[in-house]
Amino acid sequence: MSEKPKSDVLDRRRFLGAAGLGAAGLAGAGAMLPSLAKAGPAPTPDPAITEIQDWNRYLGDGVDRRPYGVPSKFEKDVIRRDVSWLTASPESSVNFTPLHALDGIITPSGVCFERHHGGIAEIDPAQHRLMIHGLVDTPLVFTMDDIKRMPRINKIYFLECAANSGMEWRGAQLNGCQFTHGMIHNVMYTGVTLKTLLEQAGVKSNAKWLLLEGADSAGMDRSLPLEKALDDVMIAYAMNGEALRPENGYPLRAVIPGWQGNLWVKWLRRIEVGDMPWQTREETSKYTDLMPDGRARKYTFVMDAKSVITSPSPQAPLKHKGRNVLTGIAWSGRGTVKRVDVSMDGGRNWVEARIDGPVLNKSIVRFYVDFDWNGEELMLQSRAIDETGYVQPTKAELRKIRGVNSVYHNNGIQTWLVHPDGVTENVEIA
Amino acid sequence: MSEKPKSDVLDRRRFLGAAGLGAAGLAGAGAMLPSLAKAGPAPTPDPAITEIQDWNRYLGDGVDRRPYGVPSKFEKDVIRRDVSWLTASPESSVNFTPLHALDGIITPSGVCFERHHGGIAEIDPAQHRLMIHGLVDTPLVFTMDDIKRMPRINKIYFLECAANSGMEWRGAQLNGCQFTHGMIHNVMYTGVTLKTLLEQAGVKSNAKWLLLEGADSAGMDRSLPLEKALDDVMIAYAMNGEALRPENGYPLRAVIPGWQGNLWVKWLRRIEVGDMPWQTREETSKYTDLMPDGRARKYTFVMDAKSVITSPSPQAPLKHKGRNVLTGIAWSGRGTVKRVDVSMDGGRNWVEARIDGPVLNKSIVRFYVDFDWNGEELMLQSRAIDETGYVQPTKAELRKIRGVNSVYHNNGIQTWLVHPDGVTENVEIA
Repeated sequence: MSEKPKSDVLDRRRFLGAAGLGAAGLAGAGAMLPSLAKAGPAPTPDPAITEIQDWNRYLGDGVDRRPYGVPSKFEKDVIRRDVSWLTASPESSVNFTPLHALDGIITPSGVCFERHHGGIAEIDPAQHRLMIHGLVDTPLVFTMDDIKRMPRINKIYFLECAANSGMEWRGAQLNGCQFTHGMIHNVMYTGVTLKTLLEQAGVKSNAKWLLLEGADSAGMDRSLPLEKALDDVMIAYAMNGEALRPENGYPLRAVIPGWQGNLWVKWLRRIEVGDMPWQTREETSKYTDLMPDGRARKYTFVMDAKSVITSPSPQAPLKHKGRNVLTGIAWSGRGTVKRVDVSMDGGRNWVEARIDGPVLNKSIVRFYVDFDWNGEELMLQSRAIDETGYVQPTKAELRKIRGVNSVYHNNGIQTWLVHPDGVTENVEIA
Repeated sequence: MSEKPKSDVLDRRRFLGAAGLGAAGLAGAGAMLPSLAKAGPAPTPDPAITEIQDWNRYLGDGVDRRPYGVPSKFEKDVIRRDVSWLTASPESSVNFTPLHALDGIITPSGVCFERHHGGIAEIDPAQHRLMIHGLVDTPLVFTMDDIKRMPRINKIYFLECAANSGMEWRGAQLNGCQFTHGMIHNVMYTGVTLKTLLEQAGVKSNAKWLLLEGADSAGMDRSLPLEKALDDVMIAYAMNGEALRPENGYPLRAVIPGWQGNLWVKWLRRIEVGDMPWQTREETSKYTDLMPDGRARKYTFVMDAKSVITSPSPQAPLKHKGRNVLTGIAWSGRGTVKRVDVSMDGGRNWVEARIDGPVLNKSIVRFYVDFDWNGEELMLQSRAIDETGYVQPTKAELRKIRGVNSVYHNNGIQTWLVHPDGVTENVEIA
């Protein structure tokens, strides 16, 4: 095995200088040079790095170290975070994707947020079944093997909880985009179309709605219009190429592109075909929009265009003057994102952000603005415009229509205030 | 905490029948129905599933279970595998991506293969530096923060080790695509272009080659033509949105699209600019092609078009007659994959496979053939055709030119023999 000392007792020593080192030693010597500066003669050692960890002097661990690879110990803070005070118990709670620390458009499975209603069902896939019954010609029960023998598709979609940013309806509450916007992830799903399954059962002509039911202890269930089911709904068993994670519905979940996450029933065990919605708890007392007049709006399925700047943000403050990268994500449940604008002065002036990476239907896009910072105060905002021409509204515009009784469907523009010392906080512009 | 019994002592009981169950009980009753068959009256219980795990009766664990999410215990075999007999030590060895169990085009970071030359360097990113020197106007040293403040790009690329399928040069050796083809992965990288870094240093007019050097104990180094460096090479710090995994080069690696994996130097600490290649160990005694006349061909960088059927395959045998899905992956170092053909009779007849999911430059594509199987013997093959018109060759065609002295750059067509009982093995057609 390795001769390297254990990492927590790594041999630290004062670096003695670069004199006499050949080419192979220059990288070590480089550690003393001012960054982004000339490597000229007799550089002054940077006091911050006069102690170095000379990992190159010890044989590292071999390929047999861990059965399943996980991130570096230096990334130990890039994890899902739960907020214990938000719900009665961890089994009926939520955790949040660490958006501030991610890049690109793929969310790694290990940090995808979760929302449970009765804890995490731990299912043996060999014994799991999916039943389709109700208004069908032939009720059917599928094993996982059955489903995997049907034609497969692969699609990258965002999943956003209807309650994402829900705490922000009454003003700036949570200090970090992980908490204000972290109930979203974006992965590649593999599975079958729900249409493929329904065609085998034969849907009767009077059918209009489906009930999707999970195999968790809550028996989480939601009504889904048949029209959407036949359009683009998937029944998926893999995310990012591997099996769904237990917390994300292993071994089988519904994928309802562009629609609120609560419909994406996890641990899917039953689909009933009917002619009207079921009025379940999760679509009556919950996941409805309480309007200013006290009435509740139901079945607001689509997640409207939205965006958030992930860095700089409260958990990712500015650390350097000069060149910097502003980055964020944007998405729309109505199709593709056409454009993202960014303001640095609280919405007075806007520049078009650069979108980099694939622009896909109902998927997150990644945007950037490269800028120079001289230490001035910044009021950062982003707004998404989707292919329908819809423009992400301000929170004030949203509240004019929706009031402040709502929990769900807050897609208002977020503001981060960057102080001259780089510290960044969640604020609201009146 | 949860009242659910520990999973390894889950309460198992005989299933007593479906009589009297309402809709909510149907999913349990469903477990007794023949799969893909009518849910008619009085179905005969399937003996294989008379014991069920009724996970829906117990409250599952909450959101605070694990800081970083990992796969289900039922997926414990979907891991990288090393072959201890292949190399002198695990620190100079390789492990393999479980291709047979994956789908889509994204390889999850946790199962991406690894190849180390001196073990895994465990690097503190705050202390890591990248130096650029040699034939430049201004030698520079970059911190990780410096690099992250430069304009970012996101690209999905395959990385294939030059030795992938290397054991197969002299005939069918290894029983599973994980071992014959598993030195490949395909992820989304985030980073900067190498061109961005070189422009800041200012490359002198007589510069033609670069040396890339890693911070591992082997100081792994390779020569790279400047032309390629200025074309599409990235210096990446993230894969699939999160930091590189330690084993894949954390915190910084080279991404050399379409070219052999050994050039993608991990733990990158130094780039020297010169006017000729360095003739390092890894490009002289290794990573060269030993030709039939005993001479070695050097600097064969590009990975030619290649494909493999991942299921059925020796580790993923056929289990059912009737409908089935054949799937696999194809890629080309010269650009996009234009078409994939599949044969079920050892290359006599071919059908065009369905490619599903994004078709991107120098990225894996996923292909499928949906077919019916009546228990006959199958000789499965796939061949990739890329945008240049290049057609993946048979192994016999390759050997005519290359002989059997080679280790590297075997992109020959693979054959899986499916026996009437579904057992599948690696064979070679003369």
